[in-house]
Amino acid sequence: MNKVKDYIEQNRELFLSQLIDFLKFPSISSRSEHKEDVRNCANWLANHIKSLGAENVNVFETEGHPIVYAEYLHNENAPTVLVYGHYDVQPVDPLDLWNSNPFEPIVKDNKIFARGTSDDKGQLFIHLKAFETVLNTIGTFPINIKFIFEGEEEAGSNHLDEFIEQNSKLLECDTVLISDTEWFDFGLPSICYALRGIAFVEIKVKGPNRDLHSGSYGGTVDNPAEVLAYLISRLKDRYGRITIPGFYDKVLELTTEEREEFARLPFNEKNYCQSIGVKQTYGENGFSVLERTWARPTLEINGIYGGYTGEGAKTIIPSEASAKISMRLVPNQVAKEILDLFSRYIREIAPPTVDIEIKPLHGGNPVMTPIDTIWMRKAKEALRIAFGVEPVFIREGGSIPVCETFQRVLGASPVLIGFGLPTDNIHSPNENFSLDNFFGGINAIANYYLLLNEK
Amino acid sequence: MNKVKDYIEQNRELFLSQLIDFLKFPSISSRSEHKEDVRNCANWLANHIKSLGAENVNVFETEGHPIVYAEYLHNENAPTVLVYGHYDVQPVDPLDLWNSNPFEPIVKDNKIFARGTSDDKGQLFIHLKAFETVLNTIGTFPINIKFIFEGEEEAGSNHLDEFIEQNSKLLECDTVLISDTEWFDFGLPSICYALRGIAFVEIKVKGPNRDLHSGSYGGTVDNPAEVLAYLISRLKDRYGRITIPGFYDKVLELTTEEREEFARLPFNEKNYCQSIGVKQTYGENGFSVLERTWARPTLEINGIYGGYTGEGAKTIIPSEASAKISMRLVPNQVAKEILDLFSRYIREIAPPTVDIEIKPLHGGNPVMTPIDTIWMRKAKEALRIAFGVEPVFIREGGSIPVCETFQRVLGASPVLIGFGLPTDNIHSPNENFSLDNFFGGINAIANYYLLLNEK
Repeated sequence: MNKVKDYIEQNRELFLSQLIDFLKFPSISSRSEHKEDVRNCANWLANHIKSLGAENVNVFETEGHPIVYAEYLHNENAPTVLVYGHYDVQPVDPLDLWNSNPFEPIVKDNKIFARGTSDDKGQLFIHLKAFETVLNTIGTFPINIKFIFEGEEEAGSNHLDEFIEQNSKLLECDTVLISDTEWFDFGLPSICYALRGIAFVEIKVKGPNRDLHSGSYGGTVDNPAEVLAYLISRLKDRYGRITIPGFYDKVLELTTEEREEFARLPFNEKNYCQSIGVKQTYGENGFSVLERTWARPTLEINGIYGGYTGEGAKTIIPSEASAKISMRLVPNQVAKEILDLFSRYIREIAPPTVDIEIKPLHGGNPVMTPIDTIWMRKAKEALRIAFGVEPVFIREGGSIPVCETFQRVLGASPVLIGFGLPTDNIHSPNENFSLDNFFGGINAIANYYLLLNEK
Repeated sequence: MNKVKDYIEQNRELFLSQLIDFLKFPSISSRSEHKEDVRNCANWLANHIKSLGAENVNVFETEGHPIVYAEYLHNENAPTVLVYGHYDVQPVDPLDLWNSNPFEPIVKDNKIFARGTSDDKGQLFIHLKAFETVLNTIGTFPINIKFIFEGEEEAGSNHLDEFIEQNSKLLECDTVLISDTEWFDFGLPSICYALRGIAFVEIKVKGPNRDLHSGSYGGTVDNPAEVLAYLISRLKDRYGRITIPGFYDKVLELTTEEREEFARLPFNEKNYCQSIGVKQTYGENGFSVLERTWARPTLEINGIYGGYTGEGAKTIIPSEASAKISMRLVPNQVAKEILDLFSRYIREIAPPTVDIEIKPLHGGNPVMTPIDTIWMRKAKEALRIAFGVEPVFIREGGSIPVCETFQRVLGASPVLIGFGLPTDNIHSPNENFSLDNFFGGINAIANYYLLLNEK
C-alpha cells in the first residue's frame, strides 16, 4: 500500500492540473444558459475516464443533462462497486462576494477555490484518481467497478431515477459508493449513514393584473407580498416547529443510542454560531443542534421576491410575489406526501382575495443505511489507513435523493465516504476543498478498493 | 376665449411634437445611472420655457437633481400663481410588459404612450402651452406667474423642501397650482382638495454572515426571510387594520358630508375590480373603497426580496432579506412620528436571533385645502368652460409631499387641477395620457389664467 501512496505523491501536480481543467466548466445545471457548458463538462469527463483505461464509457442522453457512465469489470468473483457522483454545480450568485472567479480555480493556503471543488467535482475526481492509482500500481483492478456521474444533482436529479430504473441491469452492483458529504470536524474522517430527503416547492401569490400605484390603490386591494408573508408566517410556530397538519406523523424518532452518540461528538455551539455569524441558534424545542440538523425535518425559505427590489423607492402594490421553499425530510417521511400536505395546508389558509400557484420543483426521500456491514467496516479501515485516526459514523442534514433510488431499484445501500470540511462553503461564495483531503481521499479510496477484494 | 381655442387648434401638431421631445428623456430620478438624463431633461425644459418668453429662467443645482425655475411678472396688482410640476419619472421595470419603448413616445387611439406622459411631464407641459397660448393670443399675460419644476418627485423630493425654504422670497405667491392628479372618471373634470402623505421605509433582516446550505443548517438557525415574513404579518390584522400602536391616534375622521359626497360619485366596485384584475377589494372594515383610498391611512409592501430568486432551485438559508414598505398618511398624521412608531414597533417584535436595519427613505405629510376660495371657484369655472361639464371636488390617495411645504413655508394652499385618467397606468407599464385631456387641459388652464385677472 506504500506503492499507492508513492504513486499519488508522484502525480500530485498532474492530478491537480486535471482537477483544475474539470473545475473550469461552469456546469450550472439549474440555469438553461449553461446547458452547453454542462454538456462540454460531461464530454470532458467521459474522455478523461476513457484515458484512464475504463471501458464501455458512455455519455447517455436524458431529457435534461447527460449522464456519464463507465466500468471496469475483470473479476467475476469479486464484488461490484457502483460509484456515484455529480459533475454539475450550484449557481454562483452573489458573484460579488467571491474573492476569485468561481470558474478560474486558484490554490491558496493548501486549498483549491472554485465552484464545485467540494460539491462535488473534487470529491468525484478522487474516485477516478483512486481508480487510476490502483490500476497503475498493481497493474490490474482487484474488484469490479462502475461509475455513474450525473449532471443534474443541483437541479433536482430530475432524470436520474428514470435512467436508473431503465438501466438497472447495467448498474447492478453489490454496494454504492458516494463521496458527496463532509467530515464532522477537521481531522475526523466520517462515514455518513443517513441523509435527509427534500421536498422543494415554489409558491406564487397573484393579485392585481399589474403593479398598482400604492397611493391610488393602497388600502383597497390585498397585497400579494403581504399575503405571502402571512402564509409563510403560518408555516412554523414561534418555537420553530412546523405547523403543517400531519407533517411530523411519519418522523422516525431518534434512539437513545443515537442521541448519546451525537452528544459525544466534538460540537461547540459557540464556535458554530461564530463561524456563521449568528448570535444564537434557533429551531425546534427539545432537540440539540446536531439532532435538529441530522434527524429532524425542517422547512426553509430559500428565496422570496415580489414587487420593486431596485435602488430607492417605487411605491407600488406588486402584482405578484413568490417564494422558494424547501423542506428537509427524515426517515420515514415521504417527499410526495409532504408536498401534498404542504399544498393542501396553503390552499386552506390562503385568503380568497388572491390566486395561489404551488409548483413542486422536486422531491427526494430520506435514506438510512445499516452500519454493521462489510462495506461500512472496510470503509472505516480504509479511512484509518489513509488518515491515521478512527473515523466516526454520522448523519448529514443535506439530501442526495438518488441514495433512496439506489436502495429501492438496485437493492444496494449507499456507503457515504465524504471528504468535505465544514469550511468548504458549498452552495456559497468562495467554495473550496482541502488539498490534504483531496490527496488523502485518493489514498483512502484506493485502499478501500484494495480492501474490498480481501475476504 | 375663442382665440385661445383657435390657437391651441392651430398648434396641435407642434405642441405634440414638443411634448414627444420632452418625453424622450429617461429622467428616472431614483436610479443613479440616469443622473445625466435627468440633467439633460432639466436643461431642455429650461430652454423651452425661455423660448416661450418666460423670464429669469434658471436651472438651480441641488445636492440631487436640478430644479427649473422661470417667471413672468408684469402685473403688479394682479395675483401671483406659482405653478409646480415634476419632470422626473418612475422607473420602467418590468420592461417586458411594455408594448412600446417607454422613452420612444407613440400616439395610438388618441392617447400618447410613454413613461411620464401622465405623471407628470404631460400635465406639466399643459401649463407651458397654456402660458404660451395666453401670451400669444392676447399679447401679454394678465396675471403674474412663476414656474417651479423639480426632478426628484418620484425619488422623494429630498431637496425641494430646503430649496423652497431658502427661496421663499423668490417663490412668494398667492396660490399654488399643480396638475399631477387625475379625474374621478372619464368626462368628469375633478379638483382635488386633499392628498395623502407618505412614510417610506426599507427594512433589512440580517442573519448568518453568508447564505447557508439549507441541508447542513436547516433547522438550526433562524431564517431572515422567515423573520421578515413574520414581521410583515404582524403589521396588519386580518381585517386590514394596521396594528402599529398609536398609528391611528391622529387620524382626522371623515365628516358626514364628505362620506355622503363620496357616496354620490359614480363608483362601480365591480368595474373597479375588473379593471385591476382582482376578485374582490380588501381593506379596513367599515369604510368604502373611496373612503379607504382617500381618507384612511394604509401600509403597503412595495417590494420584498431575499435569498435565491433565479430560475430553478438553490437550497439556501439566505443571509438577509429586505422589504420596501410605504405608509400612506391622512390628515393629521405626521410622517416623522409615523416612521418613529413603525421603527419602535418593529424593534419591539423582532426576535433576538437576527439583526434588524430600518432605513427611513422619505416622508411627506398629508395635506388638505379649503374649497370655499376664489382659487377653487375660478378653477371650477375654467374646467366647465373647457370641458363643458360640472367638475367635482375629490380627494386623492397619492402623495405630493411638496403641497404641505408650500402651505407651511409660502402660506399658499395648492389648487390641484389634474388631467390624468384612471386608465393612464401611472407607475406601471404602458403609461399613457389622453390627447383630449392634454389639449383640453391647455384650454382649461389658459382660461384659468384669464379668469384669475377678473375681480
